[in-house]
Amino acid sequence: MFLTRTEYDRGVNTFSPEGRLFQVEYAIEAIKLGSTAIGLRTKDGVVLAVEKRVTSPLLEPSSVEKIMEIDEHIGCAMSGLIADARTLVEHARVETQNHRFSYGEPMTVESSTQAICDLALRFGEGDEESMLQKSRPFGVSLLIAGHDENGPSLYYTDPSGTFWQCNAKAIGSGSEGADSSLQEQYNKDLTLQEAETIALSILKQVMEEKVTPNNVDIAKVAPKYHLYTPAEVEAVIARL
Amino acid sequence: MFLTRTEYDRGVNTFSPEGRLFQVEYAIEAIKLGSTAIGLRTKDGVVLAVEKRVTSPLLEPSSVEKIMEIDEHIGCAMSGLIADARTLVEHARVETQNHRFSYGEPMTVESSTQAICDLALRFGEGDEESMLQKSRPFGVSLLIAGHDENGPSLYYTDPSGTFWQCNAKAIGSGSEGADSSLQEQYNKDLTLQEAETIALSILKQVMEEKVTPNNVDIAKVAPKYHLYTPAEVEAVIARL
Amino acid sequence: MFLTRTEYDRGVNTFSPEGRLFQVEYAIEAIKLGSTAIGLRTKDGVVLAVEKRVTSPLLEPSSVEKIMEIDEHIGCAMSGLIADARTLVEHARVETQNHRFSYGEPMTVESSTQAICDLALRFGEGDEESMLQKSRPFGVSLLIAGHDENGPSLYYTDPSGTFWQCNAKAIGSGSEGADSSLQEQYNKDLTLQEAETIALSILKQVMEEKVTPNNVDIAKVAPKYHLYTPAEVEAVIARL
Amino acid sequence: MFLTRTEYDRGVNTFSPEGRLFQVEYAIEAIKLGSTAIGLRTKDGVVLAVEKRVTSPLLEPSSVEKIMEIDEHIGCAMSGLIADARTLVEHARVETQNHRFSYGEPMTVESSTQAICDLALRFGEGDEESMLQKSRPFGVSLLIAGHDENGPSLYYTDPSGTFWQCNAKAIGSGSEGADSSLQEQYNKDLTLQEAETIALSILKQVMEEKVTPNNVDIAKVAPKYHLYTPAEVEAVIARL
Amino acid sequence: MFLTRTEYDRGVNTFSPEGRLFQVEYAIEAIKLGSTAIGLRTKDGVVLAVEKRVTSPLLEPSSVEKIMEIDEHIGCAMSGLIADARTLVEHARVETQNHRFSYGEPMTVESSTQAICDLALRFGEGDEESMLQKSRPFGVSLLIAGHDENGPSLYYTDPSGTFWQCNAKAIGSGSEGADSSLQEQYNKDLTLQEAETIALSILKQVMEEKVTPNNVDIAKVAPKYHLYTPAEVEAVIARL
Amino acid sequence: MFLTRTEYDRGVNTFSPEGRLFQVEYAIEAIKLGSTAIGLRTKDGVVLAVEKRVTSPLLEPSSVEKIMEIDEHIGCAMSGLIADARTLVEHARVETQNHRFSYGEPMTVESSTQAICDLALRFGEGDEESMLQKSRPFGVSLLIAGHDENGPSLYYTDPSGTFWQCNAKAIGSGSEGADSSLQEQYNKDLTLQEAETIALSILKQVMEEKVTPNNVDIAKVAPKYHLYTPAEVEAVIARL
Amino acid sequence: MFLTRTEYDRGVNTFSPEGRLFQVEYAIEAIKLGSTAIGLRTKDGVVLAVEKRVTSPLLEPSSVEKIMEIDEHIGCAMSGLIADARTLVEHARVETQNHRFSYGEPMTVESSTQAICDLALRFGEGDEESMLQKSRPFGVSLLIAGHDENGPSLYYTDPSGTFWQCNAKAIGSGSEGADSSLQEQYNKDLTLQEAETIALSILKQVMEEKVTPNNVDIAKVAPKYHLYTPAEVEAVIARL
Repeated sequence: MFLTRTEYDRGVNTFSPEGRLFQVEYAIEAIKLGSTAIGLRTKDGVVLAVEKRVTSPLLEPSSVEKIMEIDEHIGCAMSGLIADARTLVEHARVETQNHRFSYGEPMTVESSTQAICDLALRFGEGDEESMLQKSRPFGVSLLIAGHDENGPSLYYTDPSGTFWQCNAKAIGSGSEGADSSLQEQYNKDLTLQEAETIALSILKQVMEEKVTPNNVDIAKVAPKYHLYTPAEVEAVIARL
Repeated sequence: MFLTRTEYDRGVNTFSPEGRLFQVEYAIEAIKLGSTAIGLRTKDGVVLAVEKRVTSPLLEPSSVEKIMEIDEHIGCAMSGLIADARTLVEHARVETQNHRFSYGEPMTVESSTQAICDLALRFGEGDEESMLQKSRPFGVSLLIAGHDENGPSLYYTDPSGTFWQCNAKAIGSGSEGADSSLQEQYNKDLTLQEAETIALSILKQVMEEKVTPNNVDIAKVAPKYHLYTPAEVEAVIARL
Repeated sequence: MFLTRTEYDRGVNTFSPEGRLFQVEYAIEAIKLGSTAIGLRTKDGVVLAVEKRVTSPLLEPSSVEKIMEIDEHIGCAMSGLIADARTLVEHARVETQNHRFSYGEPMTVESSTQAICDLALRFGEGDEESMLQKSRPFGVSLLIAGHDENGPSLYYTDPSGTFWQCNAKAIGSGSEGADSSLQEQYNKDLTLQEAETIALSILKQVMEEKVTPNNVDIAKVAPKYHLYTPAEVEAVIARL
Repeated sequence: MFLTRTEYDRGVNTFSPEGRLFQVEYAIEAIKLGSTAIGLRTKDGVVLAVEKRVTSPLLEPSSVEKIMEIDEHIGCAMSGLIADARTLVEHARVETQNHRFSYGEPMTVESSTQAICDLALRFGEGDEESMLQKSRPFGVSLLIAGHDENGPSLYYTDPSGTFWQCNAKAIGSGSEGADSSLQEQYNKDLTLQEAETIALSILKQVMEEKVTPNNVDIAKVAPKYHLYTPAEVEAVIARL
Repeated sequence: MFLTRTEYDRGVNTFSPEGRLFQVEYAIEAIKLGSTAIGLRTKDGVVLAVEKRVTSPLLEPSSVEKIMEIDEHIGCAMSGLIADARTLVEHARVETQNHRFSYGEPMTVESSTQAICDLALRFGEGDEESMLQKSRPFGVSLLIAGHDENGPSLYYTDPSGTFWQCNAKAIGSGSEGADSSLQEQYNKDLTLQEAETIALSILKQVMEEKVTPNNVDIAKVAPKYHLYTPAEVEAVIARL
Repeated sequence: MFLTRTEYDRGVNTFSPEGRLFQVEYAIEAIKLGSTAIGLRTKDGVVLAVEKRVTSPLLEPSSVEKIMEIDEHIGCAMSGLIADARTLVEHARVETQNHRFSYGEPMTVESSTQAICDLALRFGEGDEESMLQKSRPFGVSLLIAGHDENGPSLYYTDPSGTFWQCNAKAIGSGSEGADSSLQEQYNKDLTLQEAETIALSILKQVMEEKVTPNNVDIAKVAPKYHLYTPAEVEAVIARL
Repeated sequence: MFLTRTEYDRGVNTFSPEGRLFQVEYAIEAIKLGSTAIGLRTKDGVVLAVEKRVTSPLLEPSSVEKIMEIDEHIGCAMSGLIADARTLVEHARVETQNHRFSYGEPMTVESSTQAICDLALRFGEGDEESMLQKSRPFGVSLLIAGHDENGPSLYYTDPSGTFWQCNAKAIGSGSEGADSSLQEQYNKDLTLQEAETIALSILKQVMEEKVTPNNVDIAKVAPKYHLYTPAEVEAVIARL
């Protein structure tokens, strides 16, 4: 059975006899190799927390960016190929700025997420923006946190260009265990502070080393994007 | 026999010796993996109902959109690759808006359906809109419900770019059983309310879990598109 | 011998050692899978009749279009991939309208047929209209009926982009038997009414179910295109 | 030896180790499957005669065109893929008309032949007229008859884009026998009428059925192109 | 060893592990299948002589052109694929005419030869003149004879786009024997008439049939290009 | 296991079933074949040191450039394919100059690094700058040293288009041992002179020959880029 | 081991698992088949000497150009595919002339060398100058001799697009032995005349035939490019 499978899985955009797109499924595998990221929506805002794999003490921890600002009201955490994520984030930044310029108001979080998925979906096709864009799927998942006229919201995207809105979600190598913990601990009435604590305590379970301000990042959108300083991260760690 | 078959089925746009296009047939398989959707036309309007697979309690059910508005007089339900469906729906939205702008009147439901199938048919070819669009078939089927000068109508499209007008139709993993039930229960004199009840009772048979406002969506076009609120869905469930 | 054959038949535009183009031959196979269509030319006009495969009682028979108008003096019946036929018909409609606009008179039936075959021939090549049109042959045959300054005429096209003028012709899965019957029953002095009767009686022989206004379509060009109403079809059936 | 051969013969434009281009050789095979055509040059003009394969009595013989006018002083007979021939003839018609328009005089027969071979040679290359023209050789041979300031002339083209001037030449499935007969019977002092008779008597030998105005076509360029009416053909047959 | 070789020889522009380009080497083989051509430079001008393979008595010998004029001071003889040679000659004609137009003086023979080799070298690359020119090497060798401010000169080009200046050179199927004879018989003080005699006597040795004005062509550039009339060829034959 | 691996590793931009991109991993191997380069950030500036492999005494050591200036406040050391590095450096030089021209101030070190990685990431895709850029990953790693408004900084890039900020880092064939030594000897309070000494003493350990001004290069950015003269290098060697 | 190797070596721009680019390595092999060339830098200028393989006594030795002028202050000797070298030299000539035109001063030798390597590096990529330049590496090495404001200099380029500055260097089939001899005999205080003698005496060792003005070329850049006349070459030979 594996033999017939290999016949279809190298064509970037070819269906297998069962109607599957293997290259997209393999890209999803790339994310399972990535570091864990967690997002929680509360009524007051959204919290994002990520594990940073700082492989050497000589590496500057702040340059391992796994949480990025898209616009002042939107941020995202990522797992998978970081360079791919940067392309998506850069695209979203341009789109949100264009929207502000054209309409004089911020883009909604859903529209920004849709713009990212539109780009993700276009692999293997030519399009107007970059002629002959002949490429593989983007090997990255994002947790997009934002705050707009509908209040705080959290979106999850995968390499197939699909997205879902969530109350809480984990991605990356530890996502399976983290998702179970989130289902147990999440409720809609959490305060932001409680969400911070839950996010970090779950990250702590899936990480192999001690949690320090050097190997995790935390951000919130409440209602503006804010990446926590090492001191603020230390404060959350202290509460565990 | 299977061996010779594999020789032809990876070429996106190659005929087999029997005159078949395997990639299109495989894309149709992708739809058999999708969730079930049902449409019924009555003299008063069209009803669409879909199963939503909400895989986690932390997922926001309303973000699993399997029924979408195309124009105020047209909506559609989908089964298969959701990201592909979004591309088709987005294309139809642009076409219907362009039509309103150019001619000052809504596009007919058939013309909108044709516009979607034109795009679906173009895979594997280059065209004016997106040069070098080298791609696979769209892995999605749509049930397009609308209301125009000819009254209510329901169309069904498949990945080959073909469409048919129907009185009632089911697509997705449970379509076989659902189609049989529809043939038994459908008649042309159904009221909208009866159609809602039939649609949901048939969905209930093919779904593995209890029907709730969280895991089904219902919409009608009568004569305007309207997606039911959770309360309205609850009311239909109560009538079963 | 079959082994060497497979070496050449996947190249869309490659000659085999015997000088054959297999992809075109395979596309012709696709037509042998299609429903049967029949055309007869009389001195008063041309009659087209097609079998419609209405696979479900919930399908709207009128949406299974296998006879289409090209211009008010030209119509065509088709067998094979319907979505491919639509592309050819749409192309012919644009060409005939352009001709009317440019020259103030209708296009001749032969020129319209030539325009369709020009497009059919261009597969696998790039051309001015759609750069990089890299595609398979069109998997459809057409019977083109028309009436112009030379009187009524009937043309038959195949996937290789070739066309012939005929007095009578059948295409599709039942074409072999139907062609024999046509040769026996056709003469140049048939009236339109006699031609209708012959067409339908031959269709009846090759169809597996009872002939009804729901599963056949009839049209004439005499000298304008007219698709028969169910009542008109019923009247022809009554005469059998 | 056949095995190594298959390694090279599918590349449209690849040399084999012996310096051969197999796809061109295979296209030449396609012509050997075609109907026979014959051309003779006399001092008074050129005669072309072709076998028409009218496969069904319901086919209109005049629509099986195997002799075509290029300009009023040039005509051609063809054998092989008719749709390919049409593309070449159409190209030559445009070139000769452009020449008349630009220079106010007819194009010479050799220049017209060169224009056809230029197009035939360009397969497998991109060029200015149609970007990315990625295609196979043209599977057709032509006998081009004309009359210009140098008097009557007859040219023969093959799929490699090469052409030769001849006094008499046969192409198609019966060309071998026909060429031998031509060498025996041809001399430079033939009258046009004698040439007609020779052409038809040779065609008669290679055809499997009785010669009638329905299954042969004759044309002359003397000095204008003229396709014989059925009555004129009948008169030649009567002289055999 | 042959097996590993076949791995590299189909890539039009791929090096083998030994640093060889097989497609160019195979194109050189195509020339060894061609008819023989000979060139000799004397102090008074250059002589070119070619064997013409007139395969049928009905072929017009003058239409088998294997010696062509490039400009009034340059001519060339060819061996290999004639249609390829025509493309190169046509290119050179345009270049030499452009040069005359731009600079008011004839192009030198070396520059013309360089222009031909530039085109020959570009196979397998895209370039400004014809986008996406994806093609094989030109399967032809040329002997380019000319006369400019540096006196008479003879150049030899091969499919790799390389050229050399020679005093005498033979190409084609009989080139090996002919080259030996040339080395024996050539000296720098030959008169034009002696060169004609040597060229034809060597051609005679390598040809299988009797030499006649019908199956050889002779031309000189002294200092203008002149193709010998049948009578002039007869005169040279008479001197043998 | 290696067999299945080979199925995926030649596709430049194809995921393996485990979600890996082998061509990027192989490019990283190319760097392990390269010469060793070392960077250290101090509070006063950044030091870069590289091994130069001068394979012949006749080679001019200064032409083996493995440290290059990007802008007056940025330099970089490289390991891997030098010609690839030159393309990246040239791109960065243009970007930094454009930035100065557009904004009247130097580009930050991070933005310059990002510009390099953007180009590195684009392999295998078409883009606006160079249409149809169909290529392999860049086989080079860079250590980018700079000084801007945030003080001195050191970045490390790899072939996947990812970058990290470091306090100290080694790349190339001796990087493993060198990185260990750096972790032992590095601290944030090093002076520039101490950093020079550490860099060179570590290089000395991984090099197979005696360290001389001919086979190492040293540069600093403090705050301007400066490549050490042989005398300055000699002075550092003397301190070891 | 050879088997796995063959999997990677035909992709023009694909890394092998060890990080190697085989097509570039094979192109380097092409140079090992070429004739030997030698360059020496002295304080007074640079000397280039090449072996010319004049395969036939009828070949004009001066047309076997293996030393070419780039600008009046730059010349180069080559080994490998001569037609490839011509493309690089032609490119360099345009670049140096453009530089003179734009800046009113000669291009430096290093910049000219860089311009050649930029082109050499671009194989297998599309670029602005020639869209879709899909090609192999250039199969040629150059010794570039020049004289600019920095005095005389000698550069060596290889097919990977890399270059080095040298005091003396040999390339081609005899380069291994010639390089050893150069290391023994070279010193920085050589006069130009001594360099000529060394170059020719080393060439003599690696050539299979007697050295004559017909089978070697010598040139110097001191400070202008000058190709030696046969008499000047004879004089150097006399000194051996």
